[in-house]
Amino acid sequence: MTNGAQALMKTLVDSGVEVCFTNPGTSEMHFVAALDSEPGMRAVLALFEGVATGAADGYARMADKPAATLLHLGCGMGNGLANLHNARKGKVPVLNIVGDHATYHVKYDAQLQSDIETVARNISPSFVRTSQSTEALCQDAAEAITAARGLPGQVATLILPADVSWGEGGKPCAAPTQPQAPAAEDSAVKAAAEAIKSGKKTALLLGGRALREPALLEAARIAAHNGVTLFAETFPTRIERGAGLPPVERIAYLAELATLQLSEFDHLILVDAKAPVSFFAYPGKQSYLVPDNCTAHTLSTPEQDATASLKKLADTLGASSAQPKLQAPGRPGLPKGKLTAEKVCRAVGELMPENSIIVDEAITSGLMLNAMTAGSPRHDLITLTGGAIGQGMPNAVGAAIACPDRQVYALIGDGTAMYTNQALWTMARENLNVTTIIFNNASYSILNVELERVGAEEAGAKAKSQLDISGPVTNYALLAQSMGVHGTRVTTAEELIKAMEYAKHNPGPHLIEAVVPESLNGVKRKVLPWLLKSLPSLPRPLTKALKKKIAP
Amino acid sequence: MTNGAQALMKTLVDSGVEVCFTNPGTSEMHFVAALDSEPGMRAVLALFEGVATGAADGYARMADKPAATLLHLGCGMGNGLANLHNARKGKVPVLNIVGDHATYHVKYDAQLQSDIETVARNISPSFVRTSQSTEALCQDAAEAITAARGLPGQVATLILPADVSWGEGGKPCAAPTQPQAPAAEDSAVKAAAEAIKSGKKTALLLGGRALREPALLEAARIAAHNGVTLFAETFPTRIERGAGLPPVERIAYLAELATLQLSEFDHLILVDAKAPVSFFAYPGKQSYLVPDNCTAHTLSTPEQDATASLKKLADTLGASSAQPKLQAPGRPGLPKGKLTAEKVCRAVGELMPENSIIVDEAITSGLMLNAMTAGSPRHDLITLTGGAIGQGMPNAVGAAIACPDRQVYALIGDGTAMYTNQALWTMARENLNVTTIIFNNASYSILNVELERVGAEEAGAKAKSQLDISGPVTNYALLAQSMGVHGTRVTTAEELIKAMEYAKHNPGPHLIEAVVPESLNGVKRKVLPWLLKSLPSLPRPLTKALKKKIAP
Repeated sequence: MTNGAQALMKTLVDSGVEVCFTNPGTSEMHFVAALDSEPGMRAVLALFEGVATGAADGYARMADKPAATLLHLGCGMGNGLANLHNARKGKVPVLNIVGDHATYHVKYDAQLQSDIETVARNISPSFVRTSQSTEALCQDAAEAITAARGLPGQVATLILPADVSWGEGGKPCAAPTQPQAPAAEDSAVKAAAEAIKSGKKTALLLGGRALREPALLEAARIAAHNGVTLFAETFPTRIERGAGLPPVERIAYLAELATLQLSEFDHLILVDAKAPVSFFAYPGKQSYLVPDNCTAHTLSTPEQDATASLKKLADTLGASSAQPKLQAPGRPGLPKGKLTAEKVCRAVGELMPENSIIVDEAITSGLMLNAMTAGSPRHDLITLTGGAIGQGMPNAVGAAIACPDRQVYALIGDGTAMYTNQALWTMARENLNVTTIIFNNASYSILNVELERVGAEEAGAKAKSQLDISGPVTNYALLAQSMGVHGTRVTTAEELIKAMEYAKHNPGPHLIEAVVPESLNGVKRKVLPWLLKSLPSLPRPLTKALKKKIAP
Repeated sequence: MTNGAQALMKTLVDSGVEVCFTNPGTSEMHFVAALDSEPGMRAVLALFEGVATGAADGYARMADKPAATLLHLGCGMGNGLANLHNARKGKVPVLNIVGDHATYHVKYDAQLQSDIETVARNISPSFVRTSQSTEALCQDAAEAITAARGLPGQVATLILPADVSWGEGGKPCAAPTQPQAPAAEDSAVKAAAEAIKSGKKTALLLGGRALREPALLEAARIAAHNGVTLFAETFPTRIERGAGLPPVERIAYLAELATLQLSEFDHLILVDAKAPVSFFAYPGKQSYLVPDNCTAHTLSTPEQDATASLKKLADTLGASSAQPKLQAPGRPGLPKGKLTAEKVCRAVGELMPENSIIVDEAITSGLMLNAMTAGSPRHDLITLTGGAIGQGMPNAVGAAIACPDRQVYALIGDGTAMYTNQALWTMARENLNVTTIIFNNASYSILNVELERVGAEEAGAKAKSQLDISGPVTNYALLAQSMGVHGTRVTTAEELIKAMEYAKHNPGPHLIEAVVPESLNGVKRKVLPWLLKSLPSLPRPLTKALKKKIAP
């Protein structure tokens, strides 16, 4: 006889779901017991659900197929919610399997009883289902997998009552192959082509799948042939970049800068991207960042094939055989002396091996990362798609499991590092090739800027203490060691380089705590001038626009 | 002019909400800036929301009034959900203030946009409100506070859009004084009295507020006068116990044992408690634990005054002047030699000062705690009310802030310690008198038992690895040190005693990592016999029942 959990396990593996990031409890014990029935399933234990969900997110970004999470009732899902939110915003396929009480036990309102579906709807708006019987379980699972890996990908949640899991009579049922996504409609292609040929200043804003190599090449052909500018969305799910790939300028996080970037354009053509909006609202400032005199056109939506859509547009424009402009190779050179955040980014650009995966959650400390790695060997960059911090280290866990032969760098601000520090334990347990670099400036630095931007800068001592995490200063090297990860603390560029070289040549997880001054020290009331000072490291078009706007 | 945040701050302080456990982001910056406008508000920063919500829970259990939390949109609330669930299940008053995007920004679906109300409903079923204007904000807040501190207490959630917070024209408005809760209805008192006088075996099951001294004394008078047995619910929100207080036997976590405890009773009278149900469902086992031939009566509900209800019952029974049986003083003696979980519990019972607060999240390792502390000086015990692990250290933070002159012990299993380890940082920052003892047995020990109990014990290597957290073994002493907490690792009773004495005489936070063997080693298929072996440490009535049932 096959119980529900065993049939589910076979359904998962037969559907290509081969990794499960787990944090189980009693209601998941039959699922756990069924792990051994399927050699094709790898179970990766996390000590906190936010690690499991963030790992599933990172895995899917690199593997282009969903992993499963195994979560313990509504509270377990709650703990995993922030990183599921990031996956949702990044349109990443994830299959949640959330254990629940046995169906007949629900009415007793036992301690862990909660309304799992309500929690799940927040991150799985289109597929939340509580499986009602062992017989129906695998069909439910197949539909959940189909929902998760649709175009666009999404977070699907299958709630698994304990008795459905332990009941006999499970019937495995693999999810069907996904149909091919369509290219953009003719009318959308025509409108985009007309905008481009109008002679007005036009930019393509690329997001989602349009930031992978095949789509980037099509977009770069159009750029070369028709003189349009290429932008990438602010927080890409995954962008392929570096030497030999088309360079694309990212829209800035700060609305003030994004507005400058977009100010000269008459047409903005959206390719698997939404029109840019401000991350937060600020008193007296616009939320919608497309300039009043600029028209936004949608070439293709996330439901469509970005590469095929761009190809169709290139064909229409006669750009198909144009030579795309590719990034020339070029490392930024090694840094020297006392460490700063910029020097850390420089060292990453200089030292990272080809095919690295960079997970960027460095917040203010990572401001120079794009510039410093622009000409480095090709690599993938993963960013904070949903703004819920605590994504970086878990994403790195998943990326390393999806791509065991590649070097993963997790670049993490100290404000964000603590949320899911348990990821270090899983890195050690699975001996993952992740080098985590913590930028320790002992501050929620971004919030000092935000305090000014929202107009609340006249802060007193109590308010300021809320942004100051220097008492005590966390020792991240010790933190790593406590969980079995090799940890080092560095204060000079030379020490950093030595630690990075050591990590490169000694497989397995490493954590390098880079003690840096706050990048934005003294920025108050001077955000734009400070950025101007940093201009040599910023992308050129932005430099130009900024200089025009604010240079003395 | 007064903005919304400033008026809200005054409303909170004027209503007795004097502590706010914070983890703010941009949308909360005006609230943060307003902290300095009210000297009566203490802001305690946490590096993870689960710490903030768990601290608010622990604070309210000891202060008997709500603290506020300050959370960052839906994802921040998600991170805090598990401990809010524990507060909800424990009927603990908590006021969540959840920052949101400005009202006009919501439609742009920016990165952090999510449906906060949906998340909040899971833990605040009866008060979730998004304040719609600066003018209405303080009235909304006053209603939220009233809802939170109702009898029973609850988690109320006030969602605060950024523009409502920064808008001018806020009008402070303190919450009105709470009305007195009523005593039990005459009919309920009469029914309970008749059951007690029937001559059949009767027990009072005390929960919630019935586990505080005044109610316990009334219950103990009835016990002394009428020969009824006193039980406490399995997971009390807060129980006052120790020498000089009436002893009460707690219903066991294991349904198999709870059934034995209750098997001899014909009547079970519920006082601010629900009829006991199994924590989880198990194949072929009952979820409802009241025996078939036992009648459950409700004396008073959580909406009623437990002490007044018991007093009314005592009056009816003529028991008002009976001498309650009080616990005689008696320490268990110091342990010696190689450490075990039982020896740690013994050391706590022997060494803890009067008026200690014990937060028990030791899971299997804490099995002997009740017995070992029964005759220790009076103390408060806080337990895992909602079953969502990661409660212990945050609860200890809140308890220490509510009661700065008392010694707090957080007894934590290593399976649970990692969920909210960031609490250590807040302990260091606030220099709290918390001694955390981690039982490090490198295992999700309880799940080894649960694997058997759900009938899934034929586990293979992959399944077993999911319950084994020994690769790597976390070094909790280092973990503590990384966050600025004095941390020690001990393996013998002598080392433990030395570390506990050191902690007692050096104010501020300490963490003692007690390396212990798995309490339940070799328990598989032998849960009850193993418990029998442990009988000398178990409460007597349970011993008797167990012996009758399973002794050879």
